[in-house]
Amino acid sequence: MPRIKLIISYDGTHFNGYQVQPGLRTVQSELEHALKRMHKGMDIRVTASGRTDRYVHATGQVIHFDTELEIPADKWNIALNTMLPEDVRIIHAEQVDSQFHARFDAIQKEYRYKVNCAKIPSVFKRHYEYHYPYKVDVMKMKEASKLLLGTHDFTSFSSAKSEVEDRIRTIYSIEILEKENELTFCFIGNGFLYNMVRILVGTLIEVGSGVREPASMLSIIDAKNRAAAGKTAPGHGLYLWKVEY
Amino acid sequence: MPRIKLIISYDGTHFNGYQVQPGLRTVQSELEHALKRMHKGMDIRVTASGRTDRYVHATGQVIHFDTELEIPADKWNIALNTMLPEDVRIIHAEQVDSQFHARFDAIQKEYRYKVNCAKIPSVFKRHYEYHYPYKVDVMKMKEASKLLLGTHDFTSFSSAKSEVEDRIRTIYSIEILEKENELTFCFIGNGFLYNMVRILVGTLIEVGSGVREPASMLSIIDAKNRAAAGKTAPGHGLYLWKVEY
Repeated sequence: MPRIKLIISYDGTHFNGYQVQPGLRTVQSELEHALKRMHKGMDIRVTASGRTDRYVHATGQVIHFDTELEIPADKWNIALNTMLPEDVRIIHAEQVDSQFHARFDAIQKEYRYKVNCAKIPSVFKRHYEYHYPYKVDVMKMKEASKLLLGTHDFTSFSSAKSEVEDRIRTIYSIEILEKENELTFCFIGNGFLYNMVRILVGTLIEVGSGVREPASMLSIIDAKNRAAAGKTAPGHGLYLWKVEY
Repeated sequence: MPRIKLIISYDGTHFNGYQVQPGLRTVQSELEHALKRMHKGMDIRVTASGRTDRYVHATGQVIHFDTELEIPADKWNIALNTMLPEDVRIIHAEQVDSQFHARFDAIQKEYRYKVNCAKIPSVFKRHYEYHYPYKVDVMKMKEASKLLLGTHDFTSFSSAKSEVEDRIRTIYSIEILEKENELTFCFIGNGFLYNMVRILVGTLIEVGSGVREPASMLSIIDAKNRAAAGKTAPGHGLYLWKVEY
């Protein structure tokens, strides 16, 4: 049975996260609902590269599903986009090998996080970036971010509720882009733990604000304790940007 | 009694336009509601530079009102912003001469209109630009826009419902900015009739699509008939950008 891979984008503002939850509007349930309609009532289960939380956005989430419908791979996005609500769009569709797995085959992920430090928040970006109306020292944040690169046990930077046993991950790069009052944090790694990017950002902002020293990143990592790191930055500044296979 | 001038920005997505309408959420009613709370139940009427329609945004709407409250002028924005919903923000506040009038003293207005010509619409901009997924010839639109400059009777470019008698307006400049798939039309003039910017954009898009010739702008102006011009572009691409006094 052909397997289809989709790259999707969504505005997380009006979703209760990616994953199906009974009675709540989620991205996965909208996708499965649209696919069910296309398959004349047959349930189609989709598998994503990973979940995203409430209010979190995506420009490059990847999912796969199996289908018996004979639609040319590149027509799937057009067909599905007419069925989907306008806050989810299929960006790309292709047929893949039946062994392809959106979650297990992901070798690299990029997340971005947007912070706006202007005094008055932009009404147009209130759902799309975290408004933090204070001065931050970007050089100090860059210095701190270098200490986070490489392979570490990131227990301190993951939700205390996380049940994953292996908390060793590798961060390949962290870039902080500045454009007027907007800061964009770009994280590329082999994978990220639950809440990890939001805790990394929250901690880096504390460095930028002078509450923590850049060098403290090392002792936070060593602590292997969520309480050692900074606050969790809010979900609406976060974007699942790109998944590589 | 001191008169206060405010520059305000709003996201028009969840408003039924600027002006008070019974039972509907409008920008003016949110402003007057916040001012009433600040004035311990006293009704405060605000006057704007002009109305904006449903879904239309503003980065630089200007309003004035009179008050007996003794708040330093530059603190009004902080005080009001804590009272207002997050889709309206006061950008600037100052005390002005008691003769100042937000509508009658406006000498120049700038409106901008955003169009996105990408095949697939951005989920993040669906309320903030008009998605027109076709190729347009920007050179032809620029050629046509030059013929619209200057002082004309713009009856053809105003809503047939408009009840204004004097339809002569002066357009000082029209710029069309291109950035990837996004086009931004910038109109500066001494004033604009009801729906005028949206009809200008709708007509220019028809020129860009090859439906009309640039030179036809002259005969449209001459016709003094709304039916001679193109479609009215949708409200959610439009921004009241700046008002000069």
